[in-house]
Amino acid sequence: MIRDAGTLTRAELARRTGLARSTVAQRVDTLLRHELVYEAAGADSTGGRPPTSLVFNDGSGVVLCGDLGVTHGRLAVCDLGGASLAEEIEELDIAAGPETVLAIVDERFGALLEQAGRASSHVRGIGLGVPGPVAFDRGEPANPPIMPGWDGFSIPGWFAARHDAPVLVDNDVNIMALGEHWANWRGRDHLLFIKVGTGIGCGIVARGRIHHGAKGAAGDIGHIRLAGEEATCRCGNVGCLEAVSGGAALARRLAEQGVEARTSRDVVRLVKEGSAPATRLVREAGRNLGEVLAGCVNFFNPEVIVIGGDVGQSSQQLLAGVREVIFQRSLPLATEELRVVPSGLGDRAGVVGAAIMVIEHVLSPQAIDQAIRRGVGA
Amino acid sequence: MIRDAGTLTRAELARRTGLARSTVAQRVDTLLRHELVYEAAGADSTGGRPPTSLVFNDGSGVVLCGDLGVTHGRLAVCDLGGASLAEEIEELDIAAGPETVLAIVDERFGALLEQAGRASSHVRGIGLGVPGPVAFDRGEPANPPIMPGWDGFSIPGWFAARHDAPVLVDNDVNIMALGEHWANWRGRDHLLFIKVGTGIGCGIVARGRIHHGAKGAAGDIGHIRLAGEEATCRCGNVGCLEAVSGGAALARRLAEQGVEARTSRDVVRLVKEGSAPATRLVREAGRNLGEVLAGCVNFFNPEVIVIGGDVGQSSQQLLAGVREVIFQRSLPLATEELRVVPSGLGDRAGVVGAAIMVIEHVLSPQAIDQAIRRGVGA
Repeated sequence: MIRDAGTLTRAELARRTGLARSTVAQRVDTLLRHELVYEAAGADSTGGRPPTSLVFNDGSGVVLCGDLGVTHGRLAVCDLGGASLAEEIEELDIAAGPETVLAIVDERFGALLEQAGRASSHVRGIGLGVPGPVAFDRGEPANPPIMPGWDGFSIPGWFAARHDAPVLVDNDVNIMALGEHWANWRGRDHLLFIKVGTGIGCGIVARGRIHHGAKGAAGDIGHIRLAGEEATCRCGNVGCLEAVSGGAALARRLAEQGVEARTSRDVVRLVKEGSAPATRLVREAGRNLGEVLAGCVNFFNPEVIVIGGDVGQSSQQLLAGVREVIFQRSLPLATEELRVVPSGLGDRAGVVGAAIMVIEHVLSPQAIDQAIRRGVGA
Repeated sequence: MIRDAGTLTRAELARRTGLARSTVAQRVDTLLRHELVYEAAGADSTGGRPPTSLVFNDGSGVVLCGDLGVTHGRLAVCDLGGASLAEEIEELDIAAGPETVLAIVDERFGALLEQAGRASSHVRGIGLGVPGPVAFDRGEPANPPIMPGWDGFSIPGWFAARHDAPVLVDNDVNIMALGEHWANWRGRDHLLFIKVGTGIGCGIVARGRIHHGAKGAAGDIGHIRLAGEEATCRCGNVGCLEAVSGGAALARRLAEQGVEARTSRDVVRLVKEGSAPATRLVREAGRNLGEVLAGCVNFFNPEVIVIGGDVGQSSQQLLAGVREVIFQRSLPLATEELRVVPSGLGDRAGVVGAAIMVIEHVLSPQAIDQAIRRGVGA
């Protein structure tokens, strides 16, 4: 509450919460002891002793955060305001399994902490995004198709022996949605973040929070069926959006046309080089994505759709294709104030979202209460 | 809090809320004065004077609620526990416009109050569902396609001169979703209610509350495109679900086959009579609906999908068609624990939901505070 308001006095806190003054005084003492807030002389004195304002202390701790992809990860140390103090991109092969990958991640976290001039004792929490579905409550990947060895592996359990801090894990597209919402669209309630990379996924922000769905499977738009398409998908169905217009599918289709392309990165490179067949395919991919998103717009009525991922960000053509179909296919009431925009954070959306995920958790009243009971930092 | 817990003592309230005992005592006094709670001797005495338990008083007021359709409406007087005290179905033509329709509704509310042995002074709130999109914050229909004269009409404004109680208005499918969730699925967070009548619509419950979306347009699945269909829809697009499989479309297609049918009611009658072409068409409608819902399941990952509306409830064939396609087309993780069920409340889902919508509002701390300030019931 103090962070969101900027500054507050104890009297204002009592008024806003309806809590007894003695309760407020007690809790503020705890926050002061944890250095989560500091005191500043108030400016609005009405004569007599000015009331002391409380200010949130961004620098009172750090979080370790990472956005792990298939071939590399972005890792950072952030302060409690979400600002990055040290950050790097690290090559890593997610298929090497959790023990190997997490050992590298933790070693780099140590190096980044040193670079930021902070110690392990300053770490308040750890947030990670991974490229697959996650049982969010347990921090365990759940049947991830491209993360061999990670199924059911407890990431918080692995870190527990190394850091005395809560560990939160979510799907990479979910943390990208959270990061983009926090950085650029905090005033809007409902946002979709679309990642077009090798595959196609969607993170959903509903009423300002990530919508995970019943089993953490929400946002899997890559397997929604496209009208009139019969391509077979790795999921076993035909006509899935991802099987027609994901980065891997685009590379395959370019190769069939005799253009040298194997991965989504090749597609991105070709588009940047101005290749006509690649540009044409990416525009068509945008229209196909737009077809699926038109349905999501009718169903969910978001305020903002953010297009990200390396293929998604590679070309204005893709965005143009998306917009063309959404505004033609969705109902006027649903598109009246809809914004369809490229990602503002780009490649950093995930790591920012991972930081915000864990900061929001660490600063929640429940977590602070729990930390107090455990005596952390006291 | 008292209602949800069954009974609570003042001490338990102080513990659960963290509010000062003096604050709790003050607020409980207000609730007692409004007769929203009453006192009962506590059972868990530990010696000495037993603490007094507070019990929520279902009978301390009533709400007026209605689910208005195109040709008729269901109206009721309910107690604050959501139980119906008097209820009736009234013929009314929504196209006669708001003044005419609401005058009938209010006249019938008066008769139902009398039937229930209650007076106008007992009315704590009014909840209405209407067959079109609604600007929920203002209680005004917004560009409703089948409600001539209602666009932008303030329903709360009309009632303000007649009742001193808050008036809430929402789309009929949203209140049906709320009613079904409250009556049968309160333990689940995410539910879709599908109404298949003349048209096709969807109400979305997310984290236990109605998801309205940015402009109140969420749930408009009737205009999502079906693969391989080119029927022209009243919305101007082609291949919309509703244009192929809504009740009106089914009646038209039956008529084209020489079967006498003009409305969705005729379709329902034919199905009940065992007409083979009608049954075949309804099964196909179920598969088409399943196709669209498979996308919604991948996107939203609900726990429950409830199928309602007169056509939706007319036949097991429709439900079977829906299930067939959803479980084939959606991802295993998303369907693992998914339930696809017929509406438990049937034709009463809307009126129950309208009651719950206004009861939840009336019992919210904000509304109680406001009522206290206005001196209502004090």
